[in-house]
Amino acid sequence: MSYFSETNSEQVVNGRMSPEADPRMREVMSCLVRHLHAFARECHLRPEEWEAGIDFLTRTGQICSPERQEFILLSDVLGLSMLVDAINNRRPEGATENTVFGPFHVEGAPLRRMGERITLDGKGESCLFRGRVLDCGGNPIEGACVDVWSDNADGYYDVQQPDIQPKWNNRGRFITGADGRYAFVGIKPVSYPIPDDGPVGQLLSRIGRHPWRPAHMHYLVTAPGYQKLITHTFVDGDEYLESDAVFGVKNTLIADYEKLSGQPTEWRSDFDFILVEN
Amino acid sequence: MSYFSETNSEQVVNGRMSPEADPRMREVMSCLVRHLHAFARECHLRPEEWEAGIDFLTRTGQICSPERQEFILLSDVLGLSMLVDAINNRRPEGATENTVFGPFHVEGAPLRRMGERITLDGKGESCLFRGRVLDCGGNPIEGACVDVWSDNADGYYDVQQPDIQPKWNNRGRFITGADGRYAFVGIKPVSYPIPDDGPVGQLLSRIGRHPWRPAHMHYLVTAPGYQKLITHTFVDGDEYLESDAVFGVKNTLIADYEKLSGQPTEWRSDFDFILVEN
Repeated sequence: MSYFSETNSEQVVNGRMSPEADPRMREVMSCLVRHLHAFARECHLRPEEWEAGIDFLTRTGQICSPERQEFILLSDVLGLSMLVDAINNRRPEGATENTVFGPFHVEGAPLRRMGERITLDGKGESCLFRGRVLDCGGNPIEGACVDVWSDNADGYYDVQQPDIQPKWNNRGRFITGADGRYAFVGIKPVSYPIPDDGPVGQLLSRIGRHPWRPAHMHYLVTAPGYQKLITHTFVDGDEYLESDAVFGVKNTLIADYEKLSGQPTEWRSDFDFILVEN
Repeated sequence: MSYFSETNSEQVVNGRMSPEADPRMREVMSCLVRHLHAFARECHLRPEEWEAGIDFLTRTGQICSPERQEFILLSDVLGLSMLVDAINNRRPEGATENTVFGPFHVEGAPLRRMGERITLDGKGESCLFRGRVLDCGGNPIEGACVDVWSDNADGYYDVQQPDIQPKWNNRGRFITGADGRYAFVGIKPVSYPIPDDGPVGQLLSRIGRHPWRPAHMHYLVTAPGYQKLITHTFVDGDEYLESDAVFGVKNTLIADYEKLSGQPTEWRSDFDFILVEN
């Protein structure tokens, strides 16, 4: 029997787990302990830094509420959310890539007629979004559900301003027909900062990072027999594309926005979604 | 410019830190991000596991209060507290080793006369603790402060039972004379479980670990010109020596307890503390 020491710490801690514990729980926890110890050892973590970490985690937990999830925000700004998304959604070349889901999706948005307007507060630059839902062979998918949501022209989602914005503002669901096409009228979305008045905002400030996300439209595209697609399209040219606070941008998700004249909407953005079979 | 991906995640996240941020902050955070990402990648962390982790951390933060620090408890049971202590208190062979400070020390315990009793509730098996405070050459250190504290016979510290135990029960400070000797009368301490009615207790249960600590007496030994010594002595033969929930036991800290007869106390435990010069 060997007691805990600086050199055997991982073995002693992980050796303490019961052989009867759930095998996956053992696997994840032993991997966590290994990296936690390696972190402390590699950077020679000092007692006052450990204390600062304990204090940070405590404040992060205490600011959480039904309306605010500061630990998800922390995971987002450290790139962990995107990494978990990437690891679990490897797709063949050509298929539309996933990105972070974000905290602002709401189940059960109104089912709308194809081409209908989702902007209910009359604010912002109107934009026609259109495209197709296709399989990897380029064939249209009928009966796909395209669930969309975005912030309003002030940079807030309806759920962040329940007393100001109409319910379901800039949200809707659309079901594709035999041609696989979708179309709706929203606004050209605007960039906005993630909540930065808590511990995560303080952390970003300490490491010299801003809290902004580039403008994006959210999509959740589902169809029977195909993998669920959770993604955004980003507004090409946005100043925060290369510094998204949550690392959500991918090259293939940047969409063109064409300025129109003499049309019912001020902008148009075309984007096709390519789904992978289950 | 390369956007975030599964393979470059560490570089992209750490590359976002400002060159003007505090260098040590950069070092610690980049080491943390590297290991956090390596953890997720190596165990192929699944979305539902990530969610369970977010939920666990949130509950851990929310149960914290002025009387309870669940994140320290988490750090303790994962061996991080002992590792940080070990990394920051490397000592030459022969010097008394450190162990975890624990949450139960109170500043300003009564200064008592050498040999005086610290047990005020009349409970437990009385024990004479005695020994010397020495330098690494074996010379006595005069004017060392030996600050001691332990649980009572029911396994609780006075601060855990302010309405039941007398204030300063099983606590005291002693100043050595020219011979470096200390002596006091307390109780033979008893093993006790760490608080296991919260998220950390649930985690221990999931990985098949018990919450018990082997019986120990706490010591904080300080003397001008010497490194601060924070340690315990453990009761030899305790059933939890090899499975301390917080990994605090070291071979050199296990103390003999001699059963006495016809003496003022039922037990005697001798232990010398060897301090390292600053």
